[in-house]
Amino acid sequence: MDKRRQIPDISDSAVPLVSEVLVLDEAGRQKTISIPGERPLTVYVDKQELVTLMTIGGAPEALVLGYLKNQRFVKSLDEILSIQVDWDVESAAVVTRDGIKELKQRQEKRTVTTGCGQGTIFGDILTDLNDIALNNEARLDQETLISIVDKVRQHKSIYKQAGSVHGCALFRGAEMIMFVEDVGRHNAVDAIAGRMWLEAISGEDLVFYTTGRLTSEMVIKGAQMGIPFLLSRSGVTQMGLDMARRVGLTLFGRCSGEHFLLFSGEHRFQPS
Amino acid sequence: MDKRRQIPDISDSAVPLVSEVLVLDEAGRQKTISIPGERPLTVYVDKQELVTLMTIGGAPEALVLGYLKNQRFVKSLDEILSIQVDWDVESAAVVTRDGIKELKQRQEKRTVTTGCGQGTIFGDILTDLNDIALNNEARLDQETLISIVDKVRQHKSIYKQAGSVHGCALFRGAEMIMFVEDVGRHNAVDAIAGRMWLEAISGEDLVFYTTGRLTSEMVIKGAQMGIPFLLSRSGVTQMGLDMARRVGLTLFGRCSGEHFLLFSGEHRFQPS
Repeated sequence: MDKRRQIPDISDSAVPLVSEVLVLDEAGRQKTISIPGERPLTVYVDKQELVTLMTIGGAPEALVLGYLKNQRFVKSLDEILSIQVDWDVESAAVVTRDGIKELKQRQEKRTVTTGCGQGTIFGDILTDLNDIALNNEARLDQETLISIVDKVRQHKSIYKQAGSVHGCALFRGAEMIMFVEDVGRHNAVDAIAGRMWLEAISGEDLVFYTTGRLTSEMVIKGAQMGIPFLLSRSGVTQMGLDMARRVGLTLFGRCSGEHFLLFSGEHRFQPS
Repeated sequence: MDKRRQIPDISDSAVPLVSEVLVLDEAGRQKTISIPGERPLTVYVDKQELVTLMTIGGAPEALVLGYLKNQRFVKSLDEILSIQVDWDVESAAVVTRDGIKELKQRQEKRTVTTGCGQGTIFGDILTDLNDIALNNEARLDQETLISIVDKVRQHKSIYKQAGSVHGCALFRGAEMIMFVEDVGRHNAVDAIAGRMWLEAISGEDLVFYTTGRLTSEMVIKGAQMGIPFLLSRSGVTQMGLDMARRVGLTLFGRCSGEHFLLFSGEHRFQPS
């Protein structure tokens, strides 16, 4: 990592992600099962309340950073001096270098979206899609695709332990370089975006995998991260597909075992 | 229905819910598959822009009404004179009798939630939970529960045709009285709430079924509708369970075939 980059001063406040509860099954038997946590995390930017995110709490600092980035509140990492999460008061205190312009006004124009998860985008993200140029030289072959799906399946996850979460993963070729789960799929993708930013990882040759459905907002976020490949275990909505075609993103849905459907961006795919 | 009730003048603007697209499968074969639509619907209240909901468009007026109700913008149906949806301009025009107090201020305090779907609640909904008294006389027996799960499974749905949507259903005993699907589970539950309000249906002896996970916000919405029983094919988060216990709601998760887990509110359940 380039030592000259300005990295914000961030806390490291991950919390236990699952808890055990006692339930009754259909035969009236008591069982102890694991369920995922869900905690409110109120984000204050320069002491001004911005939003409350509901999160499992596995990567709260990266989540806050990715949220600010994906909602276009900040455009450059060096605008942020620090992010300090304190679960005792369920809050994340963000300090910026110069403040965020028109914070209140930008909060007002909102889109409440179909996503699983935070589901809110601000301002004119849709119209900004035209500025995105995804890497057209990147290629993904069928063998690597199958291998990625298999690696996610085998990965030790909260989902396997407790269910009720969505997972996102980032791959370079068949190598998993990040894996984040959260109660909402938007939080998981935001946390990935935050970590990519902190670690100065470019998305131009990466593959993004999500367990969630590819609605418009998920596709937009993938494109904003500069990632040319988007894979999902689930399906895609019409608007998600429209967005993918508009930015020339290569989109695979219904990925399971050796099966998949290629929805758009065929030029980057190399079949076996 | 009581003719003296004030019913808003609403349009009837459902749109086609699925479309066909051409994809390639893993063997390079072209296939035509159905995918669900996803459309932006911007809500204007008395000509003031409130929010843009992303929806499949199957019950847009009920969705807008349920959204306004569940976000506590309106407390009584007669506050609303009309809801007119016009897809040509992707908007819903809501006219109120006396305006909505402090609309802008109330937009500012937001919770971006873990839900699939609209995922935004305003103000102090959490603290208002204490006012909710669910019917403690209501009972659900095991046979009826199994029958409900089976009826949802057999129901003709967009999910079966195109996937990528969440469904919600309302039952009186084993009789399905409403079924709504949308790209986000929050939209589906809001549309159900809107229809219940329009049709003056009380939730006190009803069962609410959802395909989605029971996060805190889903449980809160169920409780706000006065429904004592909440069933899900999926699981529950810790905060969803905490909320259910707090309001004394009877919550079943992992409902599939004859299997289920009873998480809270055992007093209303009658095992076989």
